[in-house]
Amino acid sequence: MEKKIITISREFGSGGRTIGRQVAEKLGIPFYDKELVDQIALESGFAPNYVEEHGEHSPGRSLFAYAFAPQGVPGVMNGLSTADFLWSVQCNVILQLADQGPCVIVGRNADYILKDREDALHVFVFADEPFRAERIVRLYGESEKSPEARLHEKDKRRRVNYQHYTGRTWGQAQNYDLCLDTGVLGVEQCTDIIVNIVKNSQK
Amino acid sequence: MEKKIITISREFGSGGRTIGRQVAEKLGIPFYDKELVDQIALESGFAPNYVEEHGEHSPGRSLFAYAFAPQGVPGVMNGLSTADFLWSVQCNVILQLADQGPCVIVGRNADYILKDREDALHVFVFADEPFRAERIVRLYGESEKSPEARLHEKDKRRRVNYQHYTGRTWGQAQNYDLCLDTGVLGVEQCTDIIVNIVKNSQK
Repeated sequence: MEKKIITISREFGSGGRTIGRQVAEKLGIPFYDKELVDQIALESGFAPNYVEEHGEHSPGRSLFAYAFAPQGVPGVMNGLSTADFLWSVQCNVILQLADQGPCVIVGRNADYILKDREDALHVFVFADEPFRAERIVRLYGESEKSPEARLHEKDKRRRVNYQHYTGRTWGQAQNYDLCLDTGVLGVEQCTDIIVNIVKNSQK
Repeated sequence: MEKKIITISREFGSGGRTIGRQVAEKLGIPFYDKELVDQIALESGFAPNYVEEHGEHSPGRSLFAYAFAPQGVPGVMNGLSTADFLWSVQCNVILQLADQGPCVIVGRNADYILKDREDALHVFVFADEPFRAERIVRLYGESEKSPEARLHEKDKRRRVNYQHYTGRTWGQAQNYDLCLDTGVLGVEQCTDIIVNIVKNSQK
């Protein structure tokens, strides 16, 4: 089966976004990361930074979240919590994008949302903590928290969100077609492996 | 880091043994599968078919198991249960084999036993049930049980054994360097991916 849609799920700091961008460039197909956030924001009425922050994270139940909810469109959320509403918009946007043609989608549980598409290749990217800690400090700079604490927090929120909305275990190999340790294999080689698989599927 | 030792963990029927044999042939290095069983049998005093049947399976605690224990060597088991004794021999044999030079080792929790070797590449191979069911019937023939029941039983025993002796979750991506769905990627392509990674590590 020809693979046209590539979803990349990733541990924070493992290089999944870089791999996604490189794969998209080498295959000459769209790469959805920030664009995905903007589209979800547009269709949901949430601010992009709210989508960015909450679309992959633990489902919030606080009243505070409603302050960011779309204004002036009575009933638009159909009684859903903000998190559930955001999830439903995210599903729709990802399903639509995949229908539009070949692309690479990073994060946002796209592996689960597109699990029934046989033309999708689902990749999980991870690495050990020292590799990721060094990488996030280099790319995103220092912060008050230790890099390890930042990794744990972000991964935990992604894991809980994935478990909540998919009922599956984040990082369980059988949820994906291919899992790659970027610390061992290197970002460039991981890109090449994915590109080769897609090209081989088109032969 | 140059990769010299390849461990392959696999769901029953996913083609892990075939991939292991092909990788070993292409790299011109030894392949330990049946040979491993014989060596463990030799060093433990257990019969090869007992090692084959129990070395990767749920740790038995039945008195019956003792009937297969090494005879005539008082104290050889040092008060360990048969399962724990078998595990300790298995660990020693695998550590020794890895010390002898490049090789491919299939199964027997070798990924965990060799987790501290930086020159080891740990691979997990899996596939969906229809792919594996068709494969085991084609390779091993029909039996009284349905192929699905055979898959569930064998995988469950491997999972429980792995969890018991390693404290880790079988099939969790982060335990390996690379996880491959043979149903999606094909056995030949999986072999090529592993061979390329090893060759690239030697450049």
